[in-house]
Amino acid sequence: MAMSPDLTAAAVIDALTANRQSLATAESLTGGLIGAELTSVPGASKAYLGGLITYATELKHVLAGVPTAVLAEYGPVSPATATAMALGVQAATGADWAVAVTGVAGPDPQDGHAPGEVWVGLANPKAEATAHRLELVGSRDEIRAQTVAATFSMLLDLLRPSAF
Amino acid sequence: MAMSPDLTAAAVIDALTANRQSLATAESLTGGLIGAELTSVPGASKAYLGGLITYATELKHVLAGVPTAVLAEYGPVSPATATAMALGVQAATGADWAVAVTGVAGPDPQDGHAPGEVWVGLANPKAEATAHRLELVGSRDEIRAQTVAATFSMLLDLLRPSAF
Repeated sequence: MAMSPDLTAAAVIDALTANRQSLATAESLTGGLIGAELTSVPGASKAYLGGLITYATELKHVLAGVPTAVLAEYGPVSPATATAMALGVQAATGADWAVAVTGVAGPDPQDGHAPGEVWVGLANPKAEATAHRLELVGSRDEIRAQTVAATFSMLLDLLRPSAF
Repeated sequence: MAMSPDLTAAAVIDALTANRQSLATAESLTGGLIGAELTSVPGASKAYLGGLITYATELKHVLAGVPTAVLAEYGPVSPATATAMALGVQAATGADWAVAVTGVAGPDPQDGHAPGEVWVGLANPKAEATAHRLELVGSRDEIRAQTVAATFSMLLDLLRPSAF
């Protein structure tokens, strides 16, 4: 990537602020890294509200409202869980946009999923959610950092005027 | 500090795992950095459940259950808010221990509080909460990093057998 993560986080905050829109996050494998990078930007409070760290599977239900039936049928690493996490944190916070990430950072596989399988859920201001699969390669730290970068890139595509 | 933040995060996970206890977090000025560092440790899921990023003041009430009367009377940067955040995320997640941080990372003052004023709330397994004031000096990034380091240090003092 040409841009450092911090510059990308600033671009996300700038785009949201320009649009007068807010963002919330629900993070599993990144454990708060997306929120940490967004809030490294001075003035982030104009656009970033906060969100949930649903690291334990149970918290995906308890905090983000992912139905236990979804977790039982599809598991925590699934498009259904990613979209439900995004919609859940959007509803809980009242944010215009919400992003959720769930996947396997490694080094070990989890529930039959290999390290690097990551699902990103995105909820737009109409509360319509989509899920996007990432297939990442690298160490635990690299997979987490790549997840953050990919999430910011997706958000920028949606937030910038050229996308409308 | 002699130890890097990652080593300290690993020590916190190790101490919790040895005690068979769990931890949850509620973060304001750090925006997820405490969770991000804890989950950088492989095996963190044995001890760290997740938590809340209550960056916007409203989310301290909506997600962490801080009473609006506390926020109105004492403000978000206060010992009362820090302890209420810790007890709120502990109740929401069922964690044995909970830590909460709220304060001013800067560069600008907030609600009459200077950058570097940080309150750490700690809730123990008996759901007893205490608040601890940090007075930090440095850039936004440095204040956030020092908050994480101080939080881990406080947790280790409580978690390690010598503390009992």
